Amino acid sequence: MNTEQKLNMTMLCDFYELTMGSGYFHAGYQDRITYFDVFFRDVPDKGGFAICAGLAQLIEYIQDLHFSEEDIAYLRGRNLFPEDFLDYLRKFRFTGDIWAIPEGTPIFPYEPVITVRAPAIQAQLIETFTLLTLNHQSLIATKANRIVRAAQGRTVLEFGSRRAQGTDGAISGARAAYIGGCAGTACTISDQLFGVPAGGTMAHAWVQMFDTQYEAFETYCRLYPNNATLLVDTYNTLKSGIPDAIRAFDAVLKPLGIKKCGIRLDSGDIAYLTQKARKMLDDAGWTECQISASNSLDEYIIRDLLHQGAQIDMFGVGERMITASSQPVFGGVYKLAAVEDGDGTIVPKIKVSENVDKITNPHYKKVYRIFDRATGKAEADYITVWDETVDDSRPLELFDPKATWKRKTYTGFRAVPLQVPIFQGGELVYRQPSLKEIQAYCRQQVDTLWDEVKRFENPHTYYVDLSQRLWDIKQSLLRQSE
Amino acid sequence: MNTEQKLNMTMLCDFYELTMGSGYFHAGYQDRITYFDVFFRDVPDKGGFAICAGLAQLIEYIQDLHFSEEDIAYLRGRNLFPEDFLDYLRKFRFTGDIWAIPEGTPIFPYEPVITVRAPAIQAQLIETFTLLTLNHQSLIATKANRIVRAAQGRTVLEFGSRRAQGTDGAISGARAAYIGGCAGTACTISDQLFGVPAGGTMAHAWVQMFDTQYEAFETYCRLYPNNATLLVDTYNTLKSGIPDAIRAFDAVLKPLGIKKCGIRLDSGDIAYLTQKARKMLDDAGWTECQISASNSLDEYIIRDLLHQGAQIDMFGVGERMITASSQPVFGGVYKLAAVEDGDGTIVPKIKVSENVDKITNPHYKKVYRIFDRATGKAEADYITVWDETVDDSRPLELFDPKATWKRKTYTGFRAVPLQVPIFQGGELVYRQPSLKEIQAYCRQQVDTLWDEVKRFENPHTYYVDLSQRLWDIKQSLLRQSE
Repeated sequence: MNTEQKLNMTMLCDFYELTMGSGYFHAGYQDRITYFDVFFRDVPDKGGFAICAGLAQLIEYIQDLHFSEEDIAYLRGRNLFPEDFLDYLRKFRFTGDIWAIPEGTPIFPYEPVITVRAPAIQAQLIETFTLLTLNHQSLIATKANRIVRAAQGRTVLEFGSRRAQGTDGAISGARAAYIGGCAGTACTISDQLFGVPAGGTMAHAWVQMFDTQYEAFETYCRLYPNNATLLVDTYNTLKSGIPDAIRAFDAVLKPLGIKKCGIRLDSGDIAYLTQKARKMLDDAGWTECQISASNSLDEYIIRDLLHQGAQIDMFGVGERMITASSQPVFGGVYKLAAVEDGDGTIVPKIKVSENVDKITNPHYKKVYRIFDRATGKAEADYITVWDETVDDSRPLELFDPKATWKRKTYTGFRAVPLQVPIFQGGELVYRQPSLKEIQAYCRQQVDTLWDEVKRFENPHTYYVDLSQRLWDIKQSLLRQSE
Repeated sequence: MNTEQKLNMTMLCDFYELTMGSGYFHAGYQDRITYFDVFFRDVPDKGGFAICAGLAQLIEYIQDLHFSEEDIAYLRGRNLFPEDFLDYLRKFRFTGDIWAIPEGTPIFPYEPVITVRAPAIQAQLIETFTLLTLNHQSLIATKANRIVRAAQGRTVLEFGSRRAQGTDGAISGARAAYIGGCAGTACTISDQLFGVPAGGTMAHAWVQMFDTQYEAFETYCRLYPNNATLLVDTYNTLKSGIPDAIRAFDAVLKPLGIKKCGIRLDSGDIAYLTQKARKMLDDAGWTECQISASNSLDEYIIRDLLHQGAQIDMFGVGERMITASSQPVFGGVYKLAAVEDGDGTIVPKIKVSENVDKITNPHYKKVYRIFDRATGKAEADYITVWDETVDDSRPLELFDPKATWKRKTYTGFRAVPLQVPIFQGGELVYRQPSLKEIQAYCRQQVDTLWDEVKRFENPHTYYVDLSQRLWDIKQSLLRQSE
């Protein structure tokens, strides 16, 4: 990893985290232990599930958390913070605990994806970055997973850097797209930093630079005989693009015995042109030539193209994946769930709201995924108070927290805790998987979901239920708040 | 500026820029002078104009452009690039010319916003980053400008870091929002790095942390008597939130003689609640208390709220601004416009397409804005071949390039060149304005547009016309391509 790329993101915080921090400090609350949950309320694109991503960047951020002298000087210049608080910030580091659902896991609304237990100032300060990394990468991983599933096993590449929302949108976005199932990216630095395989061959400018299209193609084949994917739509795809490509393959690759090559289409009617192209290539003996397509694609267009018999081996997906343009926000929130009393008692906290969907689940919690032992399929998620145990040798009755009369009893299941410890007492205790492992894990976990949950439109709502005890605590807090 | 934040973004390029670069190098084209234009085709949200932004980051990138030994090692590991090309990259720097329309300028489809004149490899390599910074910041500046205009002179703050697409989405996004007219941001680091004023007071967690809401408010007022904006919707806005706020103002601020304070609403029916709140505050004598609102706002909701008589002094706008969620992509493209022959003759190039809107304007060009001398209003933009002059002492006939029979003659106008030189021979020749100056310039330039162009829906299409000579060259190239 390029050390020049290492950033200190401590100051990437909402300013109110600092005014509150100073407030906690002076109100004597700086050591008060607090519990915050990260959860989200809606799956983007009305999908059935999201893919969790962004944890690796959270870990890096937490490990690097510190205020430099420049940061202190900036804060002093704001004339809002007393010197004793600035002194405190100078020695600031994260000493709390963090649990998280591993990257690549399918996640559902209202369950705690990340839980932070830390002194109030610390827990408050990390709010913005924690949400930012989880929201951004989960958004892109979720979108990429939809697009990859639409491609039905064909290769999908992420091509969107130029339309990304900022440098990190491109760089971390390519990482998240890989977690969601993309085979690679066009973004060179994402390969260098994270090992997302980067590739690419030519733009229209290459073709325009030469006196003739054929010369451009022939030169490229000579330079990259093992990596010759030619862009065939600069002038006229069927009249000259594909014929010139075939001529160049014949002239350069055939004598070398190379059969693998490719063409790329970036405009026009992809369904029609790829079928014509496939026939022209096959007729010329280039049956192993792969066809790539890349023009404003997303899961819906890919599904339609394949439905119409388009002959595409590889999809290059740009702006609609790297910005998740159909719904470009993942709405994760960071809410206080509990505080510890002086004697260590955990006191649950709730945030009420006129909007029922905005009422939080109180308390320090655990979340389990209920897998059917016979099918291996995920049946429901089950949120409990932290000290409850789930005995999977006995039947478990779950109920819909919004319709408590709807009850279902599970037997023959495994209850797998979803969150794992990441930091304990400020120390990293999590062995981070490689990006390749995360991608494989994601694919395997998505396979545990029923097809009904995976539909693009009107998916089945996966159950995320509360334990009876947690539900009772929530009701009691709601009554108290009135 | 925090030096830790300095990044080398040279490797943030599409991989094909490197394969093409090596190709140009080995085909003997590395010194061939090329001209590339950045332009866009559609204004987001079907608006009448966009706001140009992102140039400062392009300048920083160009100045810092270099391949480190780690970069070279990575590229060598890809087994695609010969050593002589890697040697070339080791000494690589940008030696070309760049012209750009200054940040904060209203821009229109199809006009060259940035023009690059450089040896082929250099011009190609900077494609991704150039587009990324212009696309991202212009997107956010354009959206922010819409939202600020909807607020009709009331303060608009950018609050969206947690929902931004990556760290730079938050950091540079806040900068772009400021250019578009926001008064400030919640993002601390954007203040530190760029001087975007950062502010903020409390989250719901502050209120929940104390035994009572009143204690939370009273403590905050004591700590920040000159900056007391209280979040009043944690429990019940009208029943307890505003009454507790008034009690705290009375107890702490009144004895200090402080009249300036604020409340913030983040949920519920903002139109109804702010009118009630205004009355309660006024009745209690807190007529200078400002009311802030911040719940999923955008230009349409702000317009409706104001239309319904909402009493709001300050809008905090989050995800819908920082991601431009209604249309989260700014589609700037980077297209070859010309190359220089061995003898320095500029040879225009065109990219044709089956889609007429995708055909490029060829040649090295200049773009002028035609201002009416009497009204000061911008009437049209006028694109010429680079060596044409516009004599504004004589009548100028313009015609619509898509409907050439529509002609209009202008007299009494000033023709102002829009692009200014940024780099010449690789050296920065542009005096960069401060961010504050850019914001003021933007406001003033938007004021030169007719209201018809500024409508949110169905705005008047501003004229962007070609000179007769440029139009003739384009037609001739189109005929040749057939």
